[in-house]
Amino acid sequence: MASVLVLHGPNLNLLGTREPEIYGSDTLEDINELLRKRAEESCLEIDFLQSNHEGVLVDAIQQARGRYDYIILNAAAFTHYSIAIRDAIAAVDVPVIEVHISNIHKREDFRHNSILAPVSLGQICGFGVASYLMALEGIIYRLGNH
Amino acid sequence: MASVLVLHGPNLNLLGTREPEIYGSDTLEDINELLRKRAEESCLEIDFLQSNHEGVLVDAIQQARGRYDYIILNAAAFTHYSIAIRDAIAAVDVPVIEVHISNIHKREDFRHNSILAPVSLGQICGFGVASYLMALEGIIYRLGNH
Amino acid sequence: MASVLVLHGPNLNLLGTREPEIYGSDTLEDINELLRKRAEESCLEIDFLQSNHEGVLVDAIQQARGRYDYIILNAAAFTHYSIAIRDAIAAVDVPVIEVHISNIHKREDFRHNSILAPVSLGQICGFGVASYLMALEGIIYRLGNH
Amino acid sequence: MASVLVLHGPNLNLLGTREPEIYGSDTLEDINELLRKRAEESCLEIDFLQSNHEGVLVDAIQQARGRYDYIILNAAAFTHYSIAIRDAIAAVDVPVIEVHISNIHKREDFRHNSILAPVSLGQICGFGVASYLMALEGIIYRLGNH
Amino acid sequence: MASVLVLHGPNLNLLGTREPEIYGSDTLEDINELLRKRAEESCLEIDFLQSNHEGVLVDAIQQARGRYDYIILNAAAFTHYSIAIRDAIAAVDVPVIEVHISNIHKREDFRHNSILAPVSLGQICGFGVASYLMALEGIIYRLGNH
Amino acid sequence: MASVLVLHGPNLNLLGTREPEIYGSDTLEDINELLRKRAEESCLEIDFLQSNHEGVLVDAIQQARGRYDYIILNAAAFTHYSIAIRDAIAAVDVPVIEVHISNIHKREDFRHNSILAPVSLGQICGFGVASYLMALEGIIYRLGNH
Amino acid sequence: MASVLVLHGPNLNLLGTREPEIYGSDTLEDINELLRKRAEESCLEIDFLQSNHEGVLVDAIQQARGRYDYIILNAAAFTHYSIAIRDAIAAVDVPVIEVHISNIHKREDFRHNSILAPVSLGQICGFGVASYLMALEGIIYRLGNH
Amino acid sequence: MASVLVLHGPNLNLLGTREPEIYGSDTLEDINELLRKRAEESCLEIDFLQSNHEGVLVDAIQQARGRYDYIILNAAAFTHYSIAIRDAIAAVDVPVIEVHISNIHKREDFRHNSILAPVSLGQICGFGVASYLMALEGIIYRLGNH
Amino acid sequence: MASVLVLHGPNLNLLGTREPEIYGSDTLEDINELLRKRAEESCLEIDFLQSNHEGVLVDAIQQARGRYDYIILNAAAFTHYSIAIRDAIAAVDVPVIEVHISNIHKREDFRHNSILAPVSLGQICGFGVASYLMALEGIIYRLGNH
Amino acid sequence: MASVLVLHGPNLNLLGTREPEIYGSDTLEDINELLRKRAEESCLEIDFLQSNHEGVLVDAIQQARGRYDYIILNAAAFTHYSIAIRDAIAAVDVPVIEVHISNIHKREDFRHNSILAPVSLGQICGFGVASYLMALEGIIYRLGNH
Amino acid sequence: MASVLVLHGPNLNLLGTREPEIYGSDTLEDINELLRKRAEESCLEIDFLQSNHEGVLVDAIQQARGRYDYIILNAAAFTHYSIAIRDAIAAVDVPVIEVHISNIHKREDFRHNSILAPVSLGQICGFGVASYLMALEGIIYRLGNH
Amino acid sequence: MASVLVLHGPNLNLLGTREPEIYGSDTLEDINELLRKRAEESCLEIDFLQSNHEGVLVDAIQQARGRYDYIILNAAAFTHYSIAIRDAIAAVDVPVIEVHISNIHKREDFRHNSILAPVSLGQICGFGVASYLMALEGIIYRLGNH
Repeated sequence: MASVLVLHGPNLNLLGTREPEIYGSDTLEDINELLRKRAEESCLEIDFLQSNHEGVLVDAIQQARGRYDYIILNAAAFTHYSIAIRDAIAAVDVPVIEVHISNIHKREDFRHNSILAPVSLGQICGFGVASYLMALEGIIYRLGNH
Repeated sequence: MASVLVLHGPNLNLLGTREPEIYGSDTLEDINELLRKRAEESCLEIDFLQSNHEGVLVDAIQQARGRYDYIILNAAAFTHYSIAIRDAIAAVDVPVIEVHISNIHKREDFRHNSILAPVSLGQICGFGVASYLMALEGIIYRLGNH
Repeated sequence: MASVLVLHGPNLNLLGTREPEIYGSDTLEDINELLRKRAEESCLEIDFLQSNHEGVLVDAIQQARGRYDYIILNAAAFTHYSIAIRDAIAAVDVPVIEVHISNIHKREDFRHNSILAPVSLGQICGFGVASYLMALEGIIYRLGNH
Repeated sequence: MASVLVLHGPNLNLLGTREPEIYGSDTLEDINELLRKRAEESCLEIDFLQSNHEGVLVDAIQQARGRYDYIILNAAAFTHYSIAIRDAIAAVDVPVIEVHISNIHKREDFRHNSILAPVSLGQICGFGVASYLMALEGIIYRLGNH
Repeated sequence: MASVLVLHGPNLNLLGTREPEIYGSDTLEDINELLRKRAEESCLEIDFLQSNHEGVLVDAIQQARGRYDYIILNAAAFTHYSIAIRDAIAAVDVPVIEVHISNIHKREDFRHNSILAPVSLGQICGFGVASYLMALEGIIYRLGNH
Repeated sequence: MASVLVLHGPNLNLLGTREPEIYGSDTLEDINELLRKRAEESCLEIDFLQSNHEGVLVDAIQQARGRYDYIILNAAAFTHYSIAIRDAIAAVDVPVIEVHISNIHKREDFRHNSILAPVSLGQICGFGVASYLMALEGIIYRLGNH
Repeated sequence: MASVLVLHGPNLNLLGTREPEIYGSDTLEDINELLRKRAEESCLEIDFLQSNHEGVLVDAIQQARGRYDYIILNAAAFTHYSIAIRDAIAAVDVPVIEVHISNIHKREDFRHNSILAPVSLGQICGFGVASYLMALEGIIYRLGNH
Repeated sequence: MASVLVLHGPNLNLLGTREPEIYGSDTLEDINELLRKRAEESCLEIDFLQSNHEGVLVDAIQQARGRYDYIILNAAAFTHYSIAIRDAIAAVDVPVIEVHISNIHKREDFRHNSILAPVSLGQICGFGVASYLMALEGIIYRLGNH
Repeated sequence: MASVLVLHGPNLNLLGTREPEIYGSDTLEDINELLRKRAEESCLEIDFLQSNHEGVLVDAIQQARGRYDYIILNAAAFTHYSIAIRDAIAAVDVPVIEVHISNIHKREDFRHNSILAPVSLGQICGFGVASYLMALEGIIYRLGNH
Repeated sequence: MASVLVLHGPNLNLLGTREPEIYGSDTLEDINELLRKRAEESCLEIDFLQSNHEGVLVDAIQQARGRYDYIILNAAAFTHYSIAIRDAIAAVDVPVIEVHISNIHKREDFRHNSILAPVSLGQICGFGVASYLMALEGIIYRLGNH
Repeated sequence: MASVLVLHGPNLNLLGTREPEIYGSDTLEDINELLRKRAEESCLEIDFLQSNHEGVLVDAIQQARGRYDYIILNAAAFTHYSIAIRDAIAAVDVPVIEVHISNIHKREDFRHNSILAPVSLGQICGFGVASYLMALEGIIYRLGNH
Repeated sequence: MASVLVLHGPNLNLLGTREPEIYGSDTLEDINELLRKRAEESCLEIDFLQSNHEGVLVDAIQQARGRYDYIILNAAAFTHYSIAIRDAIAAVDVPVIEVHISNIHKREDFRHNSILAPVSLGQICGFGVASYLMALEGIIYRLGNH
C-alpha cells in the first residue's frame, strides 16, 4: 500500500480566513478531507502536517525517507527562500510535488521564483484547492492505481 | 456537454523521437489518445491541434471563444517569448491551463519564466505525459463532472 | 497621389470586444473607416491589412517598397520582440509611424519598450482610436496636403 | 471655449540654433506660431511658457488646474528625471500630452525612458515640429472641434 | 553522396538592395550560385530555402532529419529570439552551422547574442558572402571530401 | 481599553551589550520599561515578546488577531528575508508598525530593503530607543488617547 | 529655547486636494497647525517653508545652520533624486528627520529608495499627518522636553 | 584550557547517506570523532551541536559568548540567507571559522555567496571532512598549542 | 583677449566649512582669488558664478555662448543627474572643462558617474583646489598663452 | 606573395593533452602543419607564434603592421579580458580573424563574450582544428587566390 | 616523496611592508620558512616562486605537471580576472589549493569573487600567514603523512 | 630635488600613428619632450617608461618606492582590468596621477570605469597631450615649485 505525506507551510493554518480573494474560503481541514477521500478511493495511505517553523518541515522531510512514497508540499512563503528545505528534498529520495493554491505568477515578483522547483518532481499552481487534488491524481496515475 | 481544446506548440509533433531523456518516449498521438479516453469517461468533448506556427496558435485561441470551455495549452518554445499568444489568451474569455511535459525549472535559465502564466488559470509542469492528464482532471473537478 | 499602408498586428481583429477597458469599444473597421474618410479629404490613397502572423507582416512591409509613401504600423504584441519586423522596416525605405491605442507606459513593464521605435520615424501612443488619426495628420502635414 | 497650455522645458529656447541635425531649424517662436494658427482655426485659446527651471514648470502645471483643458508638455531633459513634474501632473486633473521633437528612441539610452509617460494621457515623438501639431490635432479630435 | 540544406531567414530575400553598407551588394541568388558551384566541385548535393516565416523554417529543419547531412543556417533576426528554431535544431540530429554575413558583434547590443549558437555545431560571422562559403569548406573538410 | 503587542526579533535580547556603537547601551528591558510607562499614561495594555525563532514570531503574529489592536514589530534580521513573517502580517488584520533602532539606510546594502514594509502600516528607523516610543506615540495619536 | 524648521517639498502645497486616497484630506496648513500646537506645549520654536523649487530648499537647509536645532523634512519627489539636497544636509550640522505621509514602500518602485536617508538622522513614513507629529515627538524626547 | 564549539547546520545530520558524490561517505559522527581526537592531542575542549532549526543555531552562538574561544561553523543552507545567524556572529565576540565540505564555487550560483563570511574570521571550503580539521589546525596554530 | 567663465554648483558656497576632511579648508573666494591671479598672469579675462539652483546654471551656460571661450564647471551634485545642464553644454559651442575638488572615485557609488563628462572637453578630479588651477593651465596651454 | 601570421594564446601549447573532450587530440604542431600545407597550395607565406604572455602577443600584433596581410588569432583566455590585445588590433591595420577550437557558446557564461570580436574582421568557433583552416579559406577567398 | 609548489602572485613580494593592517607584518620569506619547516617534518619536498607577471605563473603551473603533487596558489590580484591562470589550472592535473592571507569577503566587492575557485580543489582565506599553513596541513592529511 | 616617473601603458608606443582621430598626431617622444622641458623649468627630475607588459609596469611601480615623489600613469587598456597594477599603487606610498589622452567617457562603455582611480590621487582625461602636462602642473603646484 503506497503512502503520501502532505506538508503545509507557514500561514496555511489560516486558510479560509486569510485573504480569501487570493486563497479562497476552504479551510486546511477541508483540503485534507478532500485528499483523504480521494486517497481512500485509490487505497493510498495519507498523512498531514502543517507548521510555521522551517526546521519542523526540514525534520519532516528527512523523516519521510523510507516511510512515504511521495510528498505533496505547499511550502508557502518558504518556497522562495528556504534553501534548507531545498537541501532536505535533494537529500532524501522521496519525490516531491510542489503545489500552490494561487497562481504565483499573477502575484508579487518575488513569488514568481521557486527555489524548490529545480529539486522537485513537478509543480502545480493556480487551481485553488484543486491544486492539491491534481497532485494526488498525478501520484495515482504514476502508481498505476487509477 | 462541456468541451476542451488541446493546443500543442512547436516541435511537439516530434514527441517520442526528440530528446527522449527530456520528453519521454510517448508520441503526441499517445497523449491525445490518453486524453480522449479520459474525456470520454467524463462526457467531455475534446479537440486537438498542433502547430509550429505562432500565428496559427493565435488564430486557434481566438476562435475558441464561444466554442470551448477550456484550453489546455502546451506552448512549448512560445511559452517564453510569444506575447502575441499571451495577448490572445487575455483577449478571449476561455480559461487556459498551461502544461509542460518536462520540469522547466530544471532546464536552461530562459525556460524558467513563462510569459503566459500570468494570464493563464494555472500551470502544471514536470509530470511527463501526466501533466496533460492532470490538467484534464483539474477541468473535470472544476466542472463537477467527476 | 500619395499613398499610405495601415498595418494592424496580432489580436487587433478582436478590437471592440477585447479588454474594452484598455482598448475602447471601437472595432478595427471603425478605425479603418475613420482613416479612410480623412485620407479621402486629403486625396490620399489608403490600404489596410491585419494579421496575427509575423511573417505576413514582414512580407507586407517588404512589398510596400516603391508602392506606398508611408506605413502606419500598430504591431501590437510584435512591438516588443519581433526583430524580423524591425529588420524589414530598416530594409525598406518607406517611413514607418508606430502607433498604439493604449498608453503602453501605463501597462506591464515589458510593454514599455518598443524595439521598432529606433527604426521608425516616430511613435504615438495613448490616444485610443485617435492615435491612428494623429499619425495620418502627421503624414498629411509632412506631405503639405493639409 | 476650450484652452490649451503649451509648456516647453529646458534648452528649448535655443531651438533652431541648438544641434539642428537633431532638432531642426525651426525656432520656438515658429512652433508657437504654427500652434497659434491651428488653435485659432478650431477656436481654441492657447498659451505658451518656456523655462529652464524645474520649479517654474511645476508651478505652471499646478496653476493650470481649473484654468486649462489640456497641457501640451515638452519637458525636454526633465522628461527623464523630474519626479517633481511627474507628481505635479498626477496631482492636477488636467490631461497632459507629452511631446518630443526628436525620436528619443534613436538617441542615448537614458533618453529612451520617460518618467512622465505613465501619468500622461499619451506620448508623441519623432515628428519634429509636427509633434506639437499632432498633439493639438489629438486635442481637437477629442474636443469634437474638428 | 552527402547533402546540405541552406536556410536563409527573414529579410535575406532583400540582400543586395537592403542596407548594402552592412550586407554588401551580392544578392541571395549570387550566394546560392557560389555555394552551388563549390558543392558541385566536392560532389555535394545542395538545396536552398528562404522564408520570412518562423514556422516555415521550423518545418524545414524538422523535415531535414534523415534527408540532409548538414544545415547551413543564417536565421537573421530569428537568431536572437526564436526558441522554436532552437528547439527544432536540438530535436533533429542534423548538425547545424550558424552563419552571419555581417560581424554581429559590431552592431546593436541585441545582435551580439545568438540563442541558436549553444545548440549549433559552430558559428561563423563577419566575412560577408564568404561566411557561407567558409561554412561549406568546414563541411567538406569534415566529410573528408576535399 | 486598547492593547499593543511589542515583538522583538533575533539578537535583540543582546541589546546593550551587542555592537553598542550601532545599537546604543539600553537593554531590551530598558526599552520595554519605557514603553510600559508611556502605555500606562495613555491607559493602553501592552505586552512583549522576544524570539530568535522565525516560527515563534509567525505564531505570535497569528495569535494577535482579535487580541491586540496594534503590533509594534522590530523584526531585526528577519526584516530582510522572512516572507513567512510578511505573509503572517498580511493574513491578520492587526496593523503593524515596523521599527528599527539604527538607521538601516546607513548600513550594509542588504539592510536597506524591508520586505515587511509594503504590508505594514508604516516604518520608523534611526532614532535609537526612541524609535519604539515614537511608534507608540503614533498609536496613541491614532487612537485619540493623547 | 530649542527650535525646529519644517520643510515641505514640491506639490505638498496641494495637500488635501491632490490624490486624497494616497495623501489624505488634511491641508498643509492643518499639518502646520497641528505641529505648532504640539511645539508650543513643549516650548519649542517652530517655522515652516514649502517650495516646489529644489534650489530654495537647498538654500533653506544651508541657512538653518546655527539657527535651528532640528529640521523635519518631507522632500516629496526630491527624496528620490536631489543629490543637491543630500549634500546640503551633509554639509550643515543640523540633524534632519525625513518624513513621508504615505508608506513609500507600498507605491511605485522608484519611491522605495530615499537618497536622503543615509545622511538623515532617521526616517518615518506611512502614518499620514501623524508622520510629522511623530517626528516632533522624537525631537521632544531627544531634547528631554517631554 | 581553550575550548571550541563545532556547529553543524541543516541536513548535515544526513551526512554519509545524502548525495555522497558531493559530500562523501563520512557520517557526522566520523567528523566529530576526527576533531575530538585532534583536539585531545592539543589539549582543547571541544563540543558539538547539529540542528535543522535556524533559531537553535542563533541561540547556540549567543550562548557561546564567554564560554568558548572559537566556533567552527558549517551553516550549510543557512550560509546563504540567514542574516539572523550573521547578526549573532557579529554580536558575540567569539571568532567564527566558516567551513564547507564541498567546494561551494563548483555548485549552483546561489551557493557561491556566503553572507556569513564578512563577519567570520575566515573561510575554508572544498576539502571534504578535512575542511573541519584544517579549521581546527588554524585554531591550534593561533593558540600556539601546536 | 580670451575669457573664461567659472561656474560653481550647489553647496560649494559652503566650501571651507563643509566636510573639510573631504573638501579641504579653502573657501570659494580663496579658489576664485587663486584663479584670478593666474588668469591675470596669462592675460585672460575671468568671471565667477555660484548657484544652488539648476536653472540658474543652465541659464548661465546658455548665456556664455559668444561671450566666453571656455567654461570651467564644478557642477557638484548636479554632475550626477542634471540632464538639463548636460543639454545646455551640448547646445552651446563653448568647450567645458569639468572639475571636482575631491576624487569622486573614492566616494559613494553614485558619485563615480558623471553624466556631464561625455559632452565636456575633459575632466579633472581629486587635486583639491588645484583641480581648478590645472583646468586653467589646460586652457592656457590650448590658447598658446603660456 | 601574401602572408599570414597565426597567433596562439595561453595554454594552447598544451593542445592534445589538455581537456581532450573539449579541445580534441590534435597538437598545436598538427594544426600548424595543416595550415602550412594549405598555405603552400595557395602560395601564401605563413608564420606561427604561441605565448602564455599577454605582452608578447601585444608586441607580435604591433610588429605585424606592414609585415603581414592577415592575422589568424586564437587568443584563448585573453579573448575575454585583454583590452590590451583589443587595442593592439584596433591600432594596426592588419585584419584579424578570431578563431576558437571549441564552441564557446556551449561553455561557461564568461566565455560567451569576446571583447576582441568588435575590432576583428570576423569570428569562427566550434569546428575544432577546422576552425583555423576555415579562417585560412576565408583569407584565400578574399585574396582571390583560390 | 611527495612534493608541493607554492606560487605567490603579484605584489606579494612586498609583504610585511605593504598595507600591514590588511596583510600583517610577516614577509614572504617568513611564510616560506614556516612552510619549509612544516614540510620537512612531514617529509615533503617544497618549492617557491613569486612573480608579478601573469605569464610566468601560467608557465609555472604548466610545468608543474608530472613534477609536483600539489600547488598552493595565492594568485593575489590575478584571482579576480586571470582566465589564463584558470585555464592553466584546468589543463594540468595537479590539484590546486587557493589561499588568501586576508578575508577577501571583508574587502572591496570585486575581491569577493574568485574565478579560480571553481577549478581549484578548495579555498582558504582570512587566517593571515596561517592560511598557507592550513593548506599544507590539508595536503598532509590527504597524503596520509600526518 | 623632487622627481617624477612617467609610465605609459600598452600600445602607447604607437601614438601618432594609431587612430589619430582619437589620440592625435603627437608621438610618445613628443609628449616626453614636452614634459622634460616643463620639468626642467621647475627643477624636477623626470624619467619615462613604456611597456606593453602588465608585469613590467607592476615592477616599475614597486621600484618607484623611495625613488620618486610622484608617478604620472597612463595605464591605457590596463586602466580597466589590471587589479595587479591597482594593488601595486596601493602598496607603495608614491602618489599616482592617472592621465588619459582621450576623454574616456565619450568612448565605449567599458572605458568609462577606471579601477585605478580609487587608489590614485586624482584623474585627468580628455585634453590630448595636455593631459600629461596638466598632471605635471598639478605636481609643481603641490610641491610649491611654481
